[in-house]
Amino acid sequence: MILGIDVGGTSVKFGLVTPEGEIKHSTRFMTADWVNGLGFVESMKKEIGEYLKKYPIVKGVGIGWPGLLSLDRTKVVFLPNIPSIKNVPIVEILRSEFPQIHFKIENDAKCAALGEYYFGSNKRMSTFLLLALGTGVGAGVIMNGKLFIGGRGNGTEVGHMLTTTGDTLENRVGINHMIDYTKSQMALATYATSSLHGEKVLSPKVIADHASKGDALAIAVWGHIGTLIGESLVSMVRVLDINNILLGGGISGAFDYFMPNLKKEMMKYLPPYYTDEMYIGKATLENDAGLLGAAGLIMEAI
Amino acid sequence: MILGIDVGGTSVKFGLVTPEGEIKHSTRFMTADWVNGLGFVESMKKEIGEYLKKYPIVKGVGIGWPGLLSLDRTKVVFLPNIPSIKNVPIVEILRSEFPQIHFKIENDAKCAALGEYYFGSNKRMSTFLLLALGTGVGAGVIMNGKLFIGGRGNGTEVGHMLTTTGDTLENRVGINHMIDYTKSQMALATYATSSLHGEKVLSPKVIADHASKGDALAIAVWGHIGTLIGESLVSMVRVLDINNILLGGGISGAFDYFMPNLKKEMMKYLPPYYTDEMYIGKATLENDAGLLGAAGLIMEAI
Repeated sequence: MILGIDVGGTSVKFGLVTPEGEIKHSTRFMTADWVNGLGFVESMKKEIGEYLKKYPIVKGVGIGWPGLLSLDRTKVVFLPNIPSIKNVPIVEILRSEFPQIHFKIENDAKCAALGEYYFGSNKRMSTFLLLALGTGVGAGVIMNGKLFIGGRGNGTEVGHMLTTTGDTLENRVGINHMIDYTKSQMALATYATSSLHGEKVLSPKVIADHASKGDALAIAVWGHIGTLIGESLVSMVRVLDINNILLGGGISGAFDYFMPNLKKEMMKYLPPYYTDEMYIGKATLENDAGLLGAAGLIMEAI
Repeated sequence: MILGIDVGGTSVKFGLVTPEGEIKHSTRFMTADWVNGLGFVESMKKEIGEYLKKYPIVKGVGIGWPGLLSLDRTKVVFLPNIPSIKNVPIVEILRSEFPQIHFKIENDAKCAALGEYYFGSNKRMSTFLLLALGTGVGAGVIMNGKLFIGGRGNGTEVGHMLTTTGDTLENRVGINHMIDYTKSQMALATYATSSLHGEKVLSPKVIADHASKGDALAIAVWGHIGTLIGESLVSMVRVLDINNILLGGGISGAFDYFMPNLKKEMMKYLPPYYTDEMYIGKATLENDAGLLGAAGLIMEAI
């Protein structure tokens, strides 16, 4: 059994994962409690220790982080949400505390790609790009069965690519930005009668629901999002030459509404060499991808 | 000795290259003569045959192509300038014609990166991106001492990435497009007194010369070009995580004029993780990079 850990700015998830990718048990801690209590590193040591005592069957621990890692995968070098972890030799600390256990760390979006690779329905598809569309926008790439990490270890940070809007992809299609855009459109006279005006709280799901009922504004919002994702994918495909694309994360539920424009952009800018056998589909693991991918890190090691 | 061949839409260059990267002798054929004569493939066979007879010291032939290749590097799959080469098993054809000789093929921008890697002044820099800024815009990436070709063999086609202008990088900074842009700016009242109005023919060199003499329009053109290259580099760096960048090709002579804006864009969008130890410099082999890189292909093989 493997302990998969998915570190986030809000919470840290622990999951007991079988080699077949089944999550037997999971626990969630609040990141702020760790930071404000013993401190992040001490809290992580303590909770891992208790978990290992409770589940002595665990042979390895894989940890996914929402930040940049050192090329040698020994530490986190950039993670604004948890500044105290920066440059701490976390793998060495955990290994000396628990010498009988394998530890590995990886970036969270890259973990999600590994999760799809090991445990998704498209299992073992040898080359693909997973685009994770949530509050942030990230990606993980599997190339010929190996995780692609780029020259210095932190490639595929695609949320920070620039789009034709003059702003980054994440600043346009990240969930909060997308909702802000929707609100700005609601203020326009054209959309004075949009059914979205009846909603107190907007979310990708709410906007998708209204699109499904034919609301012109909701449909236009997804069209806009699809265009931006599509044009960014054009650039990613040109750099990485990958034509299997999986879309995951919080807005992927609106797949049917943003796909037409997304595809239109790709057909517009990419020649048949890229599009002829292109596959674009939904990621299959949803919220568990990161946790399962963190566990997947250990599958390679043991 | 190696025969390096650099295939272009206008001409095909042959060069006799030593293992140290010295070009002992070179010849140029017109591509149109080959296509309209025996046909491209037959002409290539014939000229290689004559070259090998003349220089029996040649043990291998490396060929760079301005198009997309099959993942297994046996044929060209997309090369609009020479349609008759598409899907022809060129490596197999040449190997059976000249069984004692090693043959290898690669994309021309990727060859240029290999050329810099093997023979440039930054020799053996293990990870870098070479951006080739000419009529077309291409790139080659060396990652940990290996040529990076992407998932399906034709990555780093960066000239076709979309920029904030809504158009591709090549359609904005490729030489002809850059000159068109300059002409459109010359038509503006603001630039009625630009010294460029005195030139009959515009070229990157001419525009750079006027920038060096302080002409406001020429300076503004390079500023614009620098901004667009800079923002595209931001996206490349985010996807590939490379911070050694070499600039080559026809417009790199204006390095000093476009660099300020190029750097400004990169500093604006990239955090210190990327910029702290970033190196951006000129490529060192100029026009011979492609030919030398084609020869470099064989250095790995023999």
